[in-house]
Amino acid sequence: MEKQRPSGSSDYEYDAVFLGGGGAGNVGGTYLRIHGGKALIVDSDDHLGGKCPKNACYIHHLLYDCAVELDFSRQFAGKLWWPKFDKRVAILPIINLFKAKREKTYKNIQLNAKARGVDYILKQKAEIITPQLVQVGKRKIRTKAVVVATGARPNIPSIPGIHLKGVLSHASFIEELDYEPERVLVVGASKIGAPYASFFNACGCETTIVDQVPFFRILDHEVRQYVIREMTDRGLNLFQETEVVEIFGKDRVESVHLRKNNKDWIINVDTVFMATGMIPNSEIVQHLGVNLGPNSEIKVNNRMETNVPHVYAAGDVIGFPMEQWKARKTSIIASKNILGLEAEFAMGLIPDQLHTTYEVCWVGLTEKQAKERFKHTRILKMGAIDLEKPGITPMAERMMLMGHLYPEKTGFQKLIYDAGSGKVLGLHHVGYGAKDSFTYLAYLIERGLTVDQLSEMTELFMDSGRFIQMARLAVPEKKMLDE
Amino acid sequence: MEKQRPSGSSDYEYDAVFLGGGGAGNVGGTYLRIHGGKALIVDSDDHLGGKCPKNACYIHHLLYDCAVELDFSRQFAGKLWWPKFDKRVAILPIINLFKAKREKTYKNIQLNAKARGVDYILKQKAEIITPQLVQVGKRKIRTKAVVVATGARPNIPSIPGIHLKGVLSHASFIEELDYEPERVLVVGASKIGAPYASFFNACGCETTIVDQVPFFRILDHEVRQYVIREMTDRGLNLFQETEVVEIFGKDRVESVHLRKNNKDWIINVDTVFMATGMIPNSEIVQHLGVNLGPNSEIKVNNRMETNVPHVYAAGDVIGFPMEQWKARKTSIIASKNILGLEAEFAMGLIPDQLHTTYEVCWVGLTEKQAKERFKHTRILKMGAIDLEKPGITPMAERMMLMGHLYPEKTGFQKLIYDAGSGKVLGLHHVGYGAKDSFTYLAYLIERGLTVDQLSEMTELFMDSGRFIQMARLAVPEKKMLDE
Repeated sequence: MEKQRPSGSSDYEYDAVFLGGGGAGNVGGTYLRIHGGKALIVDSDDHLGGKCPKNACYIHHLLYDCAVELDFSRQFAGKLWWPKFDKRVAILPIINLFKAKREKTYKNIQLNAKARGVDYILKQKAEIITPQLVQVGKRKIRTKAVVVATGARPNIPSIPGIHLKGVLSHASFIEELDYEPERVLVVGASKIGAPYASFFNACGCETTIVDQVPFFRILDHEVRQYVIREMTDRGLNLFQETEVVEIFGKDRVESVHLRKNNKDWIINVDTVFMATGMIPNSEIVQHLGVNLGPNSEIKVNNRMETNVPHVYAAGDVIGFPMEQWKARKTSIIASKNILGLEAEFAMGLIPDQLHTTYEVCWVGLTEKQAKERFKHTRILKMGAIDLEKPGITPMAERMMLMGHLYPEKTGFQKLIYDAGSGKVLGLHHVGYGAKDSFTYLAYLIERGLTVDQLSEMTELFMDSGRFIQMARLAVPEKKMLDE
Repeated sequence: MEKQRPSGSSDYEYDAVFLGGGGAGNVGGTYLRIHGGKALIVDSDDHLGGKCPKNACYIHHLLYDCAVELDFSRQFAGKLWWPKFDKRVAILPIINLFKAKREKTYKNIQLNAKARGVDYILKQKAEIITPQLVQVGKRKIRTKAVVVATGARPNIPSIPGIHLKGVLSHASFIEELDYEPERVLVVGASKIGAPYASFFNACGCETTIVDQVPFFRILDHEVRQYVIREMTDRGLNLFQETEVVEIFGKDRVESVHLRKNNKDWIINVDTVFMATGMIPNSEIVQHLGVNLGPNSEIKVNNRMETNVPHVYAAGDVIGFPMEQWKARKTSIIASKNILGLEAEFAMGLIPDQLHTTYEVCWVGLTEKQAKERFKHTRILKMGAIDLEKPGITPMAERMMLMGHLYPEKTGFQKLIYDAGSGKVLGLHHVGYGAKDSFTYLAYLIERGLTVDQLSEMTELFMDSGRFIQMARLAVPEKKMLDE
């Protein structure tokens, strides 16, 4: 089927050259092509798809999956059919499994691009000569626009000893790990640090997490309390508001100097895992006079245009939140505008998650935020948060066995609403099985979802989230405001 | 806090007496009380909450949870850290664990009712003398209305040998099983039969399912194909369009005579599990002249009124679908109308599920139904349905390890939409982690959700459902209609 090209684009070899073929470049390029444009993706790495299949989303979710199963094996050891389980589980075979399949993932992504008629060049660096002329190797390519989608890299602070062998980040972990970690320090209780720490812990490594600030400040206070309790219960060592002063070792990491409130101590570790944030790969546009923000992120308007005409940017390189959905959505916005379809990006309400053995999900306000902003905030809760109350309910998918063996570990959920309008202000969940639903709940809350509407929904019972049943028994508005 | 009573209700001791304290009666009674009414629940059983915590939802989900973990143990045996696993897993300890916790669940449900001021009487039968006078033991109770919420029971066909020991239903399974089944015949590939069969199979029982009709006709044809392939792969023996002629045995079940297409054969089993549907417990209203339907269900209008004034009915006793959401919603509708708050029940679009080791979820039309009704139906698919294509993508929660070890077992999903309007017609999912989201997707689809709206959502990546990303790369409407 011959696609019609948008008018005017015939002056150029491509409608857009995407610099970087990750979640932004690949999706934006595919979108552009499906809608009749001509797209070239250039990536200096050896595959399409970027970091997500290389060392981020895919491996992270594989490790979470392993962490949960390992946690079950430890929690349930000796119960029912579960064998005793106190072994140190080897990490390298998991990584090797991942790497063995990764090539196929790359191939599939590339086959999809080919099938859709998206051109791509791998293992070559692109240089933007002018916003409409890109050089790749010896080839000069005329393009209507460029979309900078070069992503981000771990932001590693310059601590003494940081270059020792055994200091890893998620980006180097897959490629460089050639030994079995036994004692791990995770630096940064971030969205990357927390799940890696839970994974190391589930594998049986002696695991410590430190952070300069209090842990998980983004979470609702009861969610945070629950998560910290359960991490501690699993033997993780947690040091909040603690600084890494120096990393010691001869050939490789041997110990780390920590400091908290002027108290100093040293812990022996063989691995330091840095999860201290990300920094955008924006160097590629420095010579063009493109405006950058304080974290080196490329500044764009809501059409994904930089201050330099014909130069767009999308994905992690434009800054936080560095999430797959933002990469996909912003690159599609860029493609639409390049195609002459007017489109603007709106951040909207963001559903979010933190893996801490449990899947922790939330959207909207925390209890504290809600109470600050609304006079008649009401809270509905279910689950294992209040250990003194007997009202412990299993929360369905992947929590039923846990709930029957350890009711206090069955997770919990919280629904926050405004009694005045009935509007849902925030939803919080610790457990399993509810994650996907937060995508749709975010969409609904942004459009004014009320507890009445929630209460009238048809739930797939037993629902892990339980928000609907909670909403059904919400005390009616009039009564609340009379209290 | 003193609740205000609706006017007129002071002539009666109660605004409503709920006959049956299950998903319908308990929720309806609680709702009525929260909203200022006075509710009495009478249940002949020894607990509030009905069958759900006794022998249905709770135990079913516990068994699903066990089935999945056991399936993982078998699939992954000898891989990574997973030990060899070829043992027959004991079922009785699982049931005993459930029963040990069940008392506490009952207690919690009853504490909740008490805390909310709902009165209840257990272990006594209620008799409806007149629609406004109920007798419980020696006590006569005046009530504004009665709500019949007596539920349903297994509908066991009168096959020769059906009364032998070892013939069980989900209702008798928990109470009567006092041996370890080794060879099980499940009769009925129903929403109860399929998951029990998968559970027996996962435990290592030699398991056969028969049904008089083709299996899983409710499913999309590719979902059905996938599910049957995966059940067969796990060693389940499936006999569709097969009749159970007779059950043989001296003291207990020893074998079963099966017939398909005039071919007869006998299989040796120690257990026959009947999952042949449910029949409403409507006998309690027979003397009142309440109209019943063809399956003995109580006929109600959309206000949950029967043909007899002041007699309402809700939950399984009013017929299919016998689901928790319907019990809850219809009993709340009854309570609202009793309180004088006008309310009508609308069935709406129903998200549905079938547990077959996998969680199978769907909402809306199958591909076949969609193509019959819409001219420009379009199908988007991801996952392991087409085994000849290499495009196998792990589907996140609980499927990543499976996807890496056995890509063909990673589940799949299908999005069906109308190219003319862009409206989503059907969503189908085999795997894990997407179930809860179908609740919200049903709500959205009923309100006209389009692929464009889906594509603009903010997904919690990696999303098990993947519907949003599929929608993003949907070919635009104009192009489709031009094809």
